[in-house]
Amino acid sequence: MMLDYKLLQALAAVVDQSGFERGAKYLGLTQSAVSQRIKLLEARLGQPVLVRAPKLAPTPLGRRLLNHVQQVRLLEHDLLDRIPALGEREQRLRLAINADSLATWWTPVTGSFCREHGVLLDLVVEDQDVALKRMRDGEVAGCICATSRPVQGARTHPLGSMRYRALASPDYIARHFPRGLNHAALRQAPAIVFGPDDRLQHRYLEMRGYQASFPHHLCPSSEGFIQLAQSGMGYGLIPERQVSRELQEGSLVDLDSESFIDVPLYWHHWRHGGSTLDALTAHLLARCNHWLTPLDGAQEFFD
Amino acid sequence: MMLDYKLLQALAAVVDQSGFERGAKYLGLTQSAVSQRIKLLEARLGQPVLVRAPKLAPTPLGRRLLNHVQQVRLLEHDLLDRIPALGEREQRLRLAINADSLATWWTPVTGSFCREHGVLLDLVVEDQDVALKRMRDGEVAGCICATSRPVQGARTHPLGSMRYRALASPDYIARHFPRGLNHAALRQAPAIVFGPDDRLQHRYLEMRGYQASFPHHLCPSSEGFIQLAQSGMGYGLIPERQVSRELQEGSLVDLDSESFIDVPLYWHHWRHGGSTLDALTAHLLARCNHWLTPLDGAQEFFD
Repeated sequence: MMLDYKLLQALAAVVDQSGFERGAKYLGLTQSAVSQRIKLLEARLGQPVLVRAPKLAPTPLGRRLLNHVQQVRLLEHDLLDRIPALGEREQRLRLAINADSLATWWTPVTGSFCREHGVLLDLVVEDQDVALKRMRDGEVAGCICATSRPVQGARTHPLGSMRYRALASPDYIARHFPRGLNHAALRQAPAIVFGPDDRLQHRYLEMRGYQASFPHHLCPSSEGFIQLAQSGMGYGLIPERQVSRELQEGSLVDLDSESFIDVPLYWHHWRHGGSTLDALTAHLLARCNHWLTPLDGAQEFFD
Repeated sequence: MMLDYKLLQALAAVVDQSGFERGAKYLGLTQSAVSQRIKLLEARLGQPVLVRAPKLAPTPLGRRLLNHVQQVRLLEHDLLDRIPALGEREQRLRLAINADSLATWWTPVTGSFCREHGVLLDLVVEDQDVALKRMRDGEVAGCICATSRPVQGARTHPLGSMRYRALASPDYIARHFPRGLNHAALRQAPAIVFGPDDRLQHRYLEMRGYQASFPHHLCPSSEGFIQLAQSGMGYGLIPERQVSRELQEGSLVDLDSESFIDVPLYWHHWRHGGSTLDALTAHLLARCNHWLTPLDGAQEFFD
């Protein structure tokens, strides 16, 4: 082996546990033993692997080493499956999931798989550009996002589309759209947008021929977004499946009869990510149809 | 005036709208006019205010200018309140709110205020260290976090505490804790942790004399966290108010009878943030008692 895994393990523990003291406790070592291992690693590489201030974080080199550790762990897990005597079969999967999927269908679809396979999830929530960058950098083993273009070393599968409807509370609609969705009203009525990179609201307005600016709240929380809409603070595009009860009760209603956008979702995963990742992929593809509408031409994509 | 606000406005539009083209459209200018304004601004300052690649973002200098623009807008809003003929009274408040507050009580408490005062919210979700850093840098006008120490130029008020209970699904408890919360079981039972900086689970285990490592999922989404717990993938500390229905239905139950932690919450806001921010503060303090338990010694803090 070219790398000393004892040193890499020390680095992973310090980063995963956010600190030398906790990392040492996690490994059952003294803090100074962990410090020495990381200093030795840095001496061998001739470069720092961690920045200590203002906040403990891996350097780009440290990040590459951690990605390698993650990939080795996935491969080890495959091996342990076949030779159980070798050790415990705990496995972490680091995945980037978009916020609305995580708030709606992700756990109902994958929960049973993770329980049965003893998978621990290490989830990050990212908008799709960042998620794909993390895939490319090898920081996550899989991601869900709206683009079908695979990154290098990854495979992409279409999952289906999620329907977003433009919704608001009845009193909001009475107050801001008494004469329907005309441009004068759209110029004044506060919308709700998930974050600066969320273009769904803009697409919705462009579909209506409205291209000017509009007042809006920014709320990067799925739950908070729905609460803002329910409290009559704004209208916004909300996953239909997330608010079936609110729609039934009438606390949220459609702005107009054609007020929806279907967003396609794709699953990206490392091509050589081990058998658990492959099995999760098969599980996802088999079950997500209950939650997502199938896409036309459900082909597989390769880089 | 020492600053040319026409140039600053161009910078703010490009950043707020995430692009030159959209920024120009927002201002009703051509893209080249906006480009020229930003070039002129950079020429006068002798430094770049934006980085163009890999992603459009303000430089530290650009960020300081944007903070200034935000503060000027708050002061303008006060002025417009008194001289309505001057212009429209749209106001944005940029605030950092912790994820669990945003998912539970924030909107029920502040919604009516924002509607009545025509406030547009620009919310960011951050863990508390980052939130306080953003306060200190002037990036947000207010924040909610668990620390009472005010940052420079800010005032701090105690809001009350939020009760977190250690919860899981009944089948999870039967599977992982058939003989109660002993240390052998805690070493094996997967927990759910919000993110690498979330120490609530660790505090809970330390209260039980358990200091070793434990398997855990990471799930930085309030709703996703609850879904993981409901699906039997792990146990975790969940705001009681967020799952009153699940507790009543019995889909989530307490791990043991003393399984709670009260987390204090404080409201930090700019000392000179204008009258709307002061009014929001008064509104918050008057209403949050319905959702949060009052803290002992509810004094005010100054930097």
